[in-house]
Amino acid sequence: MTITVQAVLDKLMEPVNKIPNTVDTLKFGDPNMVVKGIAITFMATQKVIERAINLGANLLITHEGLFYSHIDHIEIVEESPVYLEKRRLIKESGIAIYRFHDYIHRYQPDGIMVGLIEALGWKTYVEKNQPTSTIVKIPSMSLREIAEYVKGKLGIEFVRTVGNLDGTCTRIGLLAGYRGGGSLSIPLFEKEKLDLIISGEGPEWETPEFIRDAVYQGKQKALMVLGHAESEAPGMKYLAEWIETIFPGIPVHFIPEKPIFQVV
Amino acid sequence: MTITVQAVLDKLMEPVNKIPNTVDTLKFGDPNMVVKGIAITFMATQKVIERAINLGANLLITHEGLFYSHIDHIEIVEESPVYLEKRRLIKESGIAIYRFHDYIHRYQPDGIMVGLIEALGWKTYVEKNQPTSTIVKIPSMSLREIAEYVKGKLGIEFVRTVGNLDGTCTRIGLLAGYRGGGSLSIPLFEKEKLDLIISGEGPEWETPEFIRDAVYQGKQKALMVLGHAESEAPGMKYLAEWIETIFPGIPVHFIPEKPIFQVV
Repeated sequence: MTITVQAVLDKLMEPVNKIPNTVDTLKFGDPNMVVKGIAITFMATQKVIERAINLGANLLITHEGLFYSHIDHIEIVEESPVYLEKRRLIKESGIAIYRFHDYIHRYQPDGIMVGLIEALGWKTYVEKNQPTSTIVKIPSMSLREIAEYVKGKLGIEFVRTVGNLDGTCTRIGLLAGYRGGGSLSIPLFEKEKLDLIISGEGPEWETPEFIRDAVYQGKQKALMVLGHAESEAPGMKYLAEWIETIFPGIPVHFIPEKPIFQVV
Repeated sequence: MTITVQAVLDKLMEPVNKIPNTVDTLKFGDPNMVVKGIAITFMATQKVIERAINLGANLLITHEGLFYSHIDHIEIVEESPVYLEKRRLIKESGIAIYRFHDYIHRYQPDGIMVGLIEALGWKTYVEKNQPTSTIVKIPSMSLREIAEYVKGKLGIEFVRTVGNLDGTCTRIGLLAGYRGGGSLSIPLFEKEKLDLIISGEGPEWETPEFIRDAVYQGKQKALMVLGHAESEAPGMKYLAEWIETIFPGIPVHFIPEKPIFQVV
């Protein structure tokens, strides 16, 4: 049985109503090509693309865009040799690259969040899933203990925190990716009576400064910032496991990347 | 001689043509009040406001907004006890609070950048000042050496870097605040033949991932992310020194804050 690139894409988009103006499009490659292998990643870096090709994959599914811009502003990069070399690798290999972002976030529950919860081992603690956040109630731990636990579970070197490391937390809001900004996080603290928000990324002087003021006022609130990739890569790993069960005849590979930042 | 709040504001805005729809407004207080003391900060946290009041200042000048949102989206916070308590402190004290953001960035050169360059001791290395960046050419140093140098000069605990720590850099683009995104930083690398960009803050999968690909392709490029406050507070400190010379009869205090994040 032959499966085309388009057939895989259709299957991935199936659980969700059609999204207009989505960034989830086939960026390169032929939708009618027969899929020989599927590679899945958070961010299709040059290294990830090379690895996918070497593994024999001809369809690469990436959560974030290829050229460093959410809505494919190619004019930002088009004169850069970095862009040209990456584009050449893709074109010459013939690999199909599909961005799978908006659809997986609209799964119910959000597919990226499901993977994060799974990686954290907090599935039994989920109180509710909402479109942009999940609320968990864990056995009471200090912020420091949660930081060490999360680092261990996600295999990451560091997290950034705001708040008292010895303060205990039990009600946690999880927000994957770039959802750590004030407009989503701040109302959530009050609405859900949260002790802690764990998010991927957000502007530094929004939620973090809200927490700073709250703590200074003697309120028990805390924030833990994982990093954008660190918060969403587990969701793409989870997706890889799911795709393997849907297309059992096709080799499926999750390709991780190293952490983007070094702390010096 | 008595100086009113409005007189100070007029003086601060004087070097720049009137900006429509600016966030630089008097957030609290009476413009006709006589100024007894001026406090200046990057971000008017609860602690900074208390300190300003205790120092006898009745005009506080802050670079970023009071309530965790660039364009004063009060609806995000208005039900939060954190907001209510902070607002009460301000109201009861009668302190005037002015946000000075857009105007100082439009100074020629950008006043925030002038303070950053001064703090880094790189004034003699400036090649050119542009509206959103400054290009410096420093004596050749490794990325690791520059990181240590910058940490020492700015008095900060850590920076986050992308790129080879042993790679040498001489042409550097400096972008203060939230200017580290791909649309400003990526074209600047090519246009100015930069080895390194030092920025305040920006989305994690834009410029950082561009650098990762560049380095993987064997190109010498690097990124150093200081943190938003870390990149802009020196500009506000510099402003405090300048204001002291303009209004010699008024006590002027720069109020620093601790770094917002702990790395665990």
